[in-house]
Amino acid sequence: MRFDNKEFKVDSVSDISIATLCTHTSLQIFHGAKNEGFKTVGIVESKRKWFYESFSNLIDEFIVLNNWRELCRYEVISKLRELNSLLIPHGSFVEYVGLDCVMGLPIPMFGLRELLVVESNQHRKMDLLSKAGITIPKSYKIGERIEGTVIVKLPGAKGGKGYFIANNTSQILSNVNELMRKGYIKDVDDVLIQEYVVGVPAYFHFFHSPVLNRTELLGMDIRYESNVDGLRRLPPSASIDVNPTFNVVGNLPLVLRESMLLTVMKYGINFVNITKSEVPPGIVGPFCLESIINDAGDVVVFEFSGRIVAGTNIYIHGSPYSWLYWNEPMSMGRRIAREIKMAVDLGKLNYVIT
Amino acid sequence: MRFDNKEFKVDSVSDISIATLCTHTSLQIFHGAKNEGFKTVGIVESKRKWFYESFSNLIDEFIVLNNWRELCRYEVISKLRELNSLLIPHGSFVEYVGLDCVMGLPIPMFGLRELLVVESNQHRKMDLLSKAGITIPKSYKIGERIEGTVIVKLPGAKGGKGYFIANNTSQILSNVNELMRKGYIKDVDDVLIQEYVVGVPAYFHFFHSPVLNRTELLGMDIRYESNVDGLRRLPPSASIDVNPTFNVVGNLPLVLRESMLLTVMKYGINFVNITKSEVPPGIVGPFCLESIINDAGDVVVFEFSGRIVAGTNIYIHGSPYSWLYWNEPMSMGRRIAREIKMAVDLGKLNYVIT
Amino acid sequence: MRFDNKEFKVDSVSDISIATLCTHTSLQIFHGAKNEGFKTVGIVESKRKWFYESFSNLIDEFIVLNNWRELCRYEVISKLRELNSLLIPHGSFVEYVGLDCVMGLPIPMFGLRELLVVESNQHRKMDLLSKAGITIPKSYKIGERIEGTVIVKLPGAKGGKGYFIANNTSQILSNVNELMRKGYIKDVDDVLIQEYVVGVPAYFHFFHSPVLNRTELLGMDIRYESNVDGLRRLPPSASIDVNPTFNVVGNLPLVLRESMLLTVMKYGINFVNITKSEVPPGIVGPFCLESIINDAGDVVVFEFSGRIVAGTNIYIHGSPYSWLYWNEPMSMGRRIAREIKMAVDLGKLNYVIT
Repeated sequence: MRFDNKEFKVDSVSDISIATLCTHTSLQIFHGAKNEGFKTVGIVESKRKWFYESFSNLIDEFIVLNNWRELCRYEVISKLRELNSLLIPHGSFVEYVGLDCVMGLPIPMFGLRELLVVESNQHRKMDLLSKAGITIPKSYKIGERIEGTVIVKLPGAKGGKGYFIANNTSQILSNVNELMRKGYIKDVDDVLIQEYVVGVPAYFHFFHSPVLNRTELLGMDIRYESNVDGLRRLPPSASIDVNPTFNVVGNLPLVLRESMLLTVMKYGINFVNITKSEVPPGIVGPFCLESIINDAGDVVVFEFSGRIVAGTNIYIHGSPYSWLYWNEPMSMGRRIAREIKMAVDLGKLNYVIT
Repeated sequence: MRFDNKEFKVDSVSDISIATLCTHTSLQIFHGAKNEGFKTVGIVESKRKWFYESFSNLIDEFIVLNNWRELCRYEVISKLRELNSLLIPHGSFVEYVGLDCVMGLPIPMFGLRELLVVESNQHRKMDLLSKAGITIPKSYKIGERIEGTVIVKLPGAKGGKGYFIANNTSQILSNVNELMRKGYIKDVDDVLIQEYVVGVPAYFHFFHSPVLNRTELLGMDIRYESNVDGLRRLPPSASIDVNPTFNVVGNLPLVLRESMLLTVMKYGINFVNITKSEVPPGIVGPFCLESIINDAGDVVVFEFSGRIVAGTNIYIHGSPYSWLYWNEPMSMGRRIAREIKMAVDLGKLNYVIT
Repeated sequence: MRFDNKEFKVDSVSDISIATLCTHTSLQIFHGAKNEGFKTVGIVESKRKWFYESFSNLIDEFIVLNNWRELCRYEVISKLRELNSLLIPHGSFVEYVGLDCVMGLPIPMFGLRELLVVESNQHRKMDLLSKAGITIPKSYKIGERIEGTVIVKLPGAKGGKGYFIANNTSQILSNVNELMRKGYIKDVDDVLIQEYVVGVPAYFHFFHSPVLNRTELLGMDIRYESNVDGLRRLPPSASIDVNPTFNVVGNLPLVLRESMLLTVMKYGINFVNITKSEVPPGIVGPFCLESIINDAGDVVVFEFSGRIVAGTNIYIHGSPYSWLYWNEPMSMGRRIAREIKMAVDLGKLNYVIT
């Protein structure tokens, strides 16, 4: 444990301030925390403060930074401790703050911190999925002869930017060489070459509760990507020269055939179990399995996220699935707060923070 | 009536167990039943039980089968009677259990059992829509000269699998001949050849209430189909060789222009009325009109379902439309339970079960 | 002020009848008004009355017209006054009733009536956006040499009908000439020629509250258009000859990346401010900024609506965003009613009606 227990004094929920970076899914995290009776702390870049101030009903205190990297400064850490903060990492957290800062941060954090290290390596991620018995796309080493179409993913490429599609080895080599020359890639082994699975995307939002000892499927989404989701609007004549790009700008709601939920739920439980053995004591809280469903109905998982994803922003008043479990409005943000609350009430806070 | 009234003893809602097959829309049916105060019985295949057990808050009792066809066994029927079960048929019910079993089943069933017979014949279905004055696509007989593009639908093809698109008669004949040779089609007359309507799909969820004597439009959806809904993601060069397939894997929410609701509502009411004369005493509960809306705004209905459809899974906490009628959370599953509850309270249970 | 204050007697909310034309977004307007304790008046064409009568829970009184234009008749106005009506204009209001009738109507109206005049001119609309510092597409004069693809918009074309896409000047001239010859265009200067922005559409729903002195982002949507949103379903061979059309038949829900909300919110606030100086005293209530988001994440606004838009029909029980502000179900229709209610309670009714 990287924080000093004695510094983190908790007798009741009202002693804790739920803190997160003001971006990504922070509004639902604050909203959920307030609905569960917590105080909230918004860590915010100064230029973004005006926006978050308009949600004064959701955010009790601000810690203002000039840029996200200042999170690991002594004064910021002191302020977070003074407010008895519990930090909620979200999908932009490591990206904005840096892995080194996050791993050494002496502030209690919701979830399994060690998983963030695994997440920083695309190959380790795919290995973890594979070991869990989850169907994944065939992958190739650089230079290896490919069959059919592949998608080539660069390390750290966020929101799909920088990915490219190819259908022969020499095209991949030439593209990757150019990207290395430009400095976008440091190590050729960081590149992930995956079979391009033809089908429809579906992203599944899970929450694993160590307190209740169960895994919940709380929702699912489709990403809304520019320009690919707009290309159909072009007349055939105009669209011929435009290559699709995959910049994620939003998310769309989705429900799955009930019979397919069993496959997805099995994947989720398997994933929890593999993290228990490979990254003990195992995952806590939100995670997402990101898939393509092919025309045979196979759910092929090409990626996971070990924390709350932006697609959950759709379900601030609950998803079709969260209503089944909870019968009250339960966003992923609120689910996190509820888990912390239950842990506090049962004296199990150490189950959910690292 | 195929069940013995004396066996089905009902003084109050709590005497009834709402039973359904654990698949398709069963979670919302159970969720709705519990919210209305009913007991619930999940009829489940043994291999699927682990999943439904995780919703112990929704399902009071399980009847475990090795496969769905066992529903009509004496022991299963006895158990259902013992639990004073009222069976809710859903979109996978007849498909999984078989029409013969369903029609003879001595268990009270919500809705108009006789409509299931009509539903088993694609030509009778289209006739019913046509008689209701609902706009339907032009249809062709096998061998007849077609104009433009058509879609050819095989009997019993579920989720769109096995459908094909064609634009000349000889192509249809050659495809159908091959499908007959392979045994996919028994009788050439079972094939339905419909004009392919260019436009956007929209599926409308209705509920007809004999108790309130009104028809409600409770929601609408778009199907999410693999691979067709993913093909736009392929670059033009890679997509040229992929033919679209239409395997329904999920559903997406939708609202309609308010001015078009009048057409849709008129269709719904007409459909209820035609079933009153053609399949007396007429439809009870959920049904769905499945349409393409062309660029002139015409709603062309190419299919109906006489029971709850999977698209309603989107609206477990209510749809934009259900809130207008009910001002409380009202899924289609809950609406069924509410109808039964009102019928019990008013002594009109015979209005809604067969 | 076009109505006589003495005629409009308001001591409490229950003195006011919220009135609107029965179409477009009227059901949510009535639903919201009832939830806030108002009486409601449905102004309805006789042929549509049967549909709205089925929502007797939402509509207290009907004023039946043979056609919308009768709104400005003496008897209708008298009846509206007798019921102490406050009229809510929506997206079909000016289109159906005519600007002359609306501007002279001696009935209190929610919102800034003068903005309807600006809205009737496409060029003034784009100027207003531009002055607000909002990114808009490059526009061209007729005959001017264009670069790339443009979309040509005709005055008064509703729901995207009549728009066309072009990529050279002579094609535009020939199309526009034909449209003039057919009488679809009166003045060549009414045509708006805009750069065709490649990206994904997103429509943002705002509400400006003079009572709370704040601007709320209450939701967003994507339009569902026939036939363009169905063309992907055609096999490549069949789709080649079909040109996309853009008839809006419905709306789909959407959430945006949280980091992009800042751009959108800034646009919304800027828009409110520019209306304060250009169309004093400035906009009141709902408005919509209609955009394409390109692959760089730029939000390019090509149009605005100065009143409630149909996309808000998705969120009758609240949107992901409205829950953040209100933590209770808050449709745009209800938000209007809430603003009026707060204004009445605070003696500020003159802030919100003209």
